[in-house]
Amino acid sequence: MEEIYVFGHKNPDTDAICSAIVYAKIKNFIPARLGEINEETKFVLNHFDVEVPELLNNADGKKVILVDHNEFQQSADGIEKAEILEVIDHHKIKFSYDKPVKFLTEPFGSTATIIAKNFERDIRGIKSINEKKKIKGLLLSSILSDTVVFKSPTTTEEDKRIAKELAHSIGIEDIVKFGIEIKKAKGSIKGKEIESIIMSDFKEFDFNGKKVGIGQTEIVDINEIYEIKDKISEFLENLKNKGYEMTVFIATDIINEGSELFFAGDKDKIEKAFNVKVDGNSVYIKGLMSRKKQVVPNLQKVF
Amino acid sequence: MEEIYVFGHKNPDTDAICSAIVYAKIKNFIPARLGEINEETKFVLNHFDVEVPELLNNADGKKVILVDHNEFQQSADGIEKAEILEVIDHHKIKFSYDKPVKFLTEPFGSTATIIAKNFERDIRGIKSINEKKKIKGLLLSSILSDTVVFKSPTTTEEDKRIAKELAHSIGIEDIVKFGIEIKKAKGSIKGKEIESIIMSDFKEFDFNGKKVGIGQTEIVDINEIYEIKDKISEFLENLKNKGYEMTVFIATDIINEGSELFFAGDKDKIEKAFNVKVDGNSVYIKGLMSRKKQVVPNLQKVF
Repeated sequence: MEEIYVFGHKNPDTDAICSAIVYAKIKNFIPARLGEINEETKFVLNHFDVEVPELLNNADGKKVILVDHNEFQQSADGIEKAEILEVIDHHKIKFSYDKPVKFLTEPFGSTATIIAKNFERDIRGIKSINEKKKIKGLLLSSILSDTVVFKSPTTTEEDKRIAKELAHSIGIEDIVKFGIEIKKAKGSIKGKEIESIIMSDFKEFDFNGKKVGIGQTEIVDINEIYEIKDKISEFLENLKNKGYEMTVFIATDIINEGSELFFAGDKDKIEKAFNVKVDGNSVYIKGLMSRKKQVVPNLQKVF
Repeated sequence: MEEIYVFGHKNPDTDAICSAIVYAKIKNFIPARLGEINEETKFVLNHFDVEVPELLNNADGKKVILVDHNEFQQSADGIEKAEILEVIDHHKIKFSYDKPVKFLTEPFGSTATIIAKNFERDIRGIKSINEKKKIKGLLLSSILSDTVVFKSPTTTEEDKRIAKELAHSIGIEDIVKFGIEIKKAKGSIKGKEIESIIMSDFKEFDFNGKKVGIGQTEIVDINEIYEIKDKISEFLENLKNKGYEMTVFIATDIINEGSELFFAGDKDKIEKAFNVKVDGNSVYIKGLMSRKKQVVPNLQKVF
């Protein structure tokens, strides 16, 4: 069999890992990953008794399928010299390739939703009941993870409908409870290094020529964040001095649906962007859940 | 109803026009075109008694769906200020957009093949038998046109399979005969203006920062092209002086499966790109049928 690797983005989250595993399984390719899996993904793979995919160090010369990303910047080292066969993703598109490829993106809350919807027939066709259950479990977990249990504003009706169908068919009755369980797996920051808390999901943006860095984490018990408040501010301040105009850290309170937003930089900009009064170096903003849909566009406007 | 426009590329061919019409019909959008329809497309629309879609002069501020192209350069004026909802295409990808959109490309011989395959259920669901026949007729014609009646190297098994199914279900028995009939409609260049022969299917490419323009026409009797040889060379030379590094015109001989390739620009590049010896301003290349799969990648390599 020809070796075709399927993988999600660097700093993989649950959707990046599980979408790769599922698509590889149904199409008989090799699932891979571009980095260490996080605690949440570990919980999901354990729960459904699925192996961690192999680490791919370089894609040079390989036949590859990208899931959950399409920008080369987020992809494997050597991607410029790989042969890209397919792309399946739910992010904005920034892609250029010299040959026609199979490219499928849809504006859903997770890549898993696209796979579940478009390859329903393949999934239905899997003979082993055990295998089928694993696949459905991983897809469901990815949807719940990427939509923050349907609380993220990126969530669509299609995500909910498909997650419910998946949950029903593998006998998970309380879908929200299961989602919170997944989130809890990475939800505690107790005992973690401050750097890993802020940097494990950190992205850089260019706002009108100014470099802004925004990290995010999701927590089940928001009080944990207040215990390390000063350390966070100190870290953001130091980081800012390394060439950023502003650094931001969003601690998202998945239970109460809001975020404590920490920042180092111009306070006025934060007050204007989110229409809040800020006292100190952080502020709790009700309803704020998504970096992509809320923090980035609002900050971009004031820059 | 919200106004959503579906259109193919500038200098529309049969696939660009018919894919837009069909997708608009099945999804209840407005089909549009970015230029005059050619003789072949006119024949197809007449044959299935379908109206010519409206001309769209500018996409600024409109909600749009692109079919049969994805590069802004080949799209409507004002496309940068349009809201792009979907893209369905079979060409190479060069696309960047700030929001996640529904983006579907597959490496088939025509966009119509992708539509027929992915929206089979929508097509089956059309209640009017008359409407359904028109839709299938347009899809079939597009496949036959874009694959040059299955002779182009871009042709895939999926194109053939779907074309046969479509032909069968609308009572067309001799599919190749019908294909040649379509091709003959634009197959004669007798009495046409030189400009319309070269420019009616003309595309611009950026090869390593150099602008290259490549026109193509298909002819049933290749000898017709030799009668206007000098006029073609003169036209390409004048056109080149308007900011192109090279201009190319491919006269594709659909009966004998080859092309007379005319050019204005560096002869060495042509010789190197196609591994041929060139004497004068044109050369016959056996087996050359496709701009996309043969001319563009070979020329790109030498630039």
